[in-house]
Amino acid sequence: MDTQEVIARLRQAVDETKVRTNLEFLAERRHDYSVLSQLADLKGRGCPNPACVVTPSTTNDVAAVVKICRETKTPLLTFGLGSGVVCGIMATPHCVLLDMGAMKKIRMIDTDNLMATFEAGVRGSDAEAAVARRGMTIGHFPQSMDVSSVGGWVATRSSGQFSSAYGSIEDMVMGIEAVLPDGEIYSTRLTPRASSGPDLKHLFLGSEGTLGVITAVTFSLYWRAPKQDYSAWRAPSMEKGFSFQRHVIQSGWNPPVMRQYDATEVKRLFPDQARDRDAFIILVHEGPTGRVEAELKECEEIASDLGIGRAPSEPILKWLQDRNHVPGFESFLQNNIILDTIEIAATWDRIEGIYHNAVSSLNLVPNMLNASAHSSHCYRSGINLYFTFAARVDDPGNMETVYDDCWKRVMEATLRGGGGISHHHGIGRIRKKWLADELGPAGVGILRKIKNVLDPENIMNPEVLIPHE
Amino acid sequence: MDTQEVIARLRQAVDETKVRTNLEFLAERRHDYSVLSQLADLKGRGCPNPACVVTPSTTNDVAAVVKICRETKTPLLTFGLGSGVVCGIMATPHCVLLDMGAMKKIRMIDTDNLMATFEAGVRGSDAEAAVARRGMTIGHFPQSMDVSSVGGWVATRSSGQFSSAYGSIEDMVMGIEAVLPDGEIYSTRLTPRASSGPDLKHLFLGSEGTLGVITAVTFSLYWRAPKQDYSAWRAPSMEKGFSFQRHVIQSGWNPPVMRQYDATEVKRLFPDQARDRDAFIILVHEGPTGRVEAELKECEEIASDLGIGRAPSEPILKWLQDRNHVPGFESFLQNNIILDTIEIAATWDRIEGIYHNAVSSLNLVPNMLNASAHSSHCYRSGINLYFTFAARVDDPGNMETVYDDCWKRVMEATLRGGGGISHHHGIGRIRKKWLADELGPAGVGILRKIKNVLDPENIMNPEVLIPHE
Repeated sequence: MDTQEVIARLRQAVDETKVRTNLEFLAERRHDYSVLSQLADLKGRGCPNPACVVTPSTTNDVAAVVKICRETKTPLLTFGLGSGVVCGIMATPHCVLLDMGAMKKIRMIDTDNLMATFEAGVRGSDAEAAVARRGMTIGHFPQSMDVSSVGGWVATRSSGQFSSAYGSIEDMVMGIEAVLPDGEIYSTRLTPRASSGPDLKHLFLGSEGTLGVITAVTFSLYWRAPKQDYSAWRAPSMEKGFSFQRHVIQSGWNPPVMRQYDATEVKRLFPDQARDRDAFIILVHEGPTGRVEAELKECEEIASDLGIGRAPSEPILKWLQDRNHVPGFESFLQNNIILDTIEIAATWDRIEGIYHNAVSSLNLVPNMLNASAHSSHCYRSGINLYFTFAARVDDPGNMETVYDDCWKRVMEATLRGGGGISHHHGIGRIRKKWLADELGPAGVGILRKIKNVLDPENIMNPEVLIPHE
Repeated sequence: MDTQEVIARLRQAVDETKVRTNLEFLAERRHDYSVLSQLADLKGRGCPNPACVVTPSTTNDVAAVVKICRETKTPLLTFGLGSGVVCGIMATPHCVLLDMGAMKKIRMIDTDNLMATFEAGVRGSDAEAAVARRGMTIGHFPQSMDVSSVGGWVATRSSGQFSSAYGSIEDMVMGIEAVLPDGEIYSTRLTPRASSGPDLKHLFLGSEGTLGVITAVTFSLYWRAPKQDYSAWRAPSMEKGFSFQRHVIQSGWNPPVMRQYDATEVKRLFPDQARDRDAFIILVHEGPTGRVEAELKECEEIASDLGIGRAPSEPILKWLQDRNHVPGFESFLQNNIILDTIEIAATWDRIEGIYHNAVSSLNLVPNMLNASAHSSHCYRSGINLYFTFAARVDDPGNMETVYDDCWKRVMEATLRGGGGISHHHGIGRIRKKWLADELGPAGVGILRKIKNVLDPENIMNPEVLIPHE
């Protein structure tokens, strides 16, 4: 069916003011926040507008749009607030883009059960503020929280800065509502735990728009902690720092924030704290007062045993203040500097090797200005790393080539070192070619089969996540 | 293909001593530990033997068996150690039963990463003992742990007695290895956390043998807590007791064991503690010493605010000693007493209503000897209940009818009250008719589609979990 007919049918099915074709409105939603999309725009060859943008205000609106797209075999891209960084959204001229930003009702906040239900388009910081006014917290603080939606958090399997105590998104989501590719509405039963077959909500956590449209999310909340405290530490090497973090979390303590910066990042982010090749570690402690005090005391003992010294806590206050700043890439790109961040994860025994191999490999790229990493999420069995690279490119025509090369170096160092290719940004288009290495052929086979059976017309965000056979 | 040909092919594919047809060996593995199967045996009309039992010793053995069953369209039932209680295993004359008990190697124990990998047939208590010898714990203590396998824990989405601190099985499993219905081997990458599409291991948690054969499980472990302490409490009503537990867990404390018995169960299990209609609560506190002390102190404050009194701790030691005793049903059944336990879960605001309605409804059954409940798993947003019923049946021919009636009463009280139909025993055959109410039509639709696409011949434990359309 031709695009104009699809638009006409959409206008019959939902309030016609919700089906937008204003070019500026379309242009603003063509793609996510990924460096490659910004670079393409700067060069004047960015991705095209979608055929239209639909701004549903109800789950029934979404179901109507999905059904029309399925009947007409029209690609459907679900757009949250556009803060993704792995090219998860790139419009095509014939696609319909579903902008969830108008679905921003708070459906329920419940202080007895510590639960809250938000429509998918609610901005993260608005959701947190709404429960914070009642003394609670979601516990989810991604750097993007001012520019991301709760539906996006689920679709990308997000993880926030306070995850080491409060968990990642999968530990907070109690239930979801989603429109399936056949237009049916799926809604999980709100119970604290079940053994009623596979927990199907996990299909949608990390689905990146490929298996349905998430329309609402229910969180199991926390009371805001009565006590917050901070501690900073200086380790003579990344290895010693990892050892400190490992001992803290394996001893049963859970500082929500556990971050370790390599010497390169210390110089850039905390210049006053830079000492030789020392790593800098910041912890935020939260919880009942008695627990926070006991935790801090034991962290001191663990540090002392490992020869790790205490550092001033002031940099933590600065970090807490600035932590949601999302940097702009444009000035770098205009100066022919290509850059990005890449997050991975691995078990404790493997993280040190991946760190050194990835940074060394990045430093082989000509004119590498910065190849560094910090960790930001800590687990009993391992930790993540968040690499940052920035390289000056002599020939502006080579920006994408250098970008791809840097990604390839980090992905290959990670896979060779036994790590996982993404900790919390997702797959999108950028990591798609490495997904088979991550999941194995049988894992990718399962994913393809589920995609085929739930979305046989392959209309839901068809180009992301799942590699072609 | 006829059954003898299937057996002959199996004997060619795996060491022929692994394909058993000894009648006694078959008879012992015909069914799980469910009351209905035991009752049917007593009455001399228990389920038949399988065509054969295969005892694989490697993942390749399992893959070979799965492929033959798929090619010959032979039903394949995976048997762990047989401790299930919802009729998840009932042999048919033409089925092949895969007894995982011979796959009991410990593949890896790692004190740096706090990880251990066990083959699926390893007995729960053996797995725990192996890591305990190195100072660690899985943290998973189901009552069945002496008679259940780690693969069974995963297949049923099990939850243990120490779950309120250590989590349920989904919080401990870092990775699995499984043979898919097409014979391919799926193995998850061992990383602490990933955002690489949907976390596919969740398909197998709770799959009850319908989506593949789990062949190995990797756990993320804990160091054994340096300190354990106990506290017991007496609440003037179930409601007050729930309120106490809710405040403890919502305040950020995590006693691993939190159990609350109603007055009927106190009389039966802790007769010395019985006072009027008081509920009895036991907590086990574990963790770093400072945290345990702080937790106990704050539990006292919460109790005091709610008018909850401290009780003697001795009954906790008795419970800790006896907690893995799995009761025999035979003497009851022979005396025409039908009985079972039924676990459900609900949010805090709903649990009180479900408790009263289910117990009241059970008490309407003629000759009800015991209708009672305790809670045993506590969450920020709710709690479980574990009902026990026992009724004398005048006409022995009515035992199954009364059994079905009791189950129906608890399931309907749960669903009407907004609870979830199973907390940790699973669906099997017994709860199958209520699964559509639990998951909704769209949820059951997803499950059916996944089953159809992964197991198009419907050979994997074909009669459990998923209701027919």
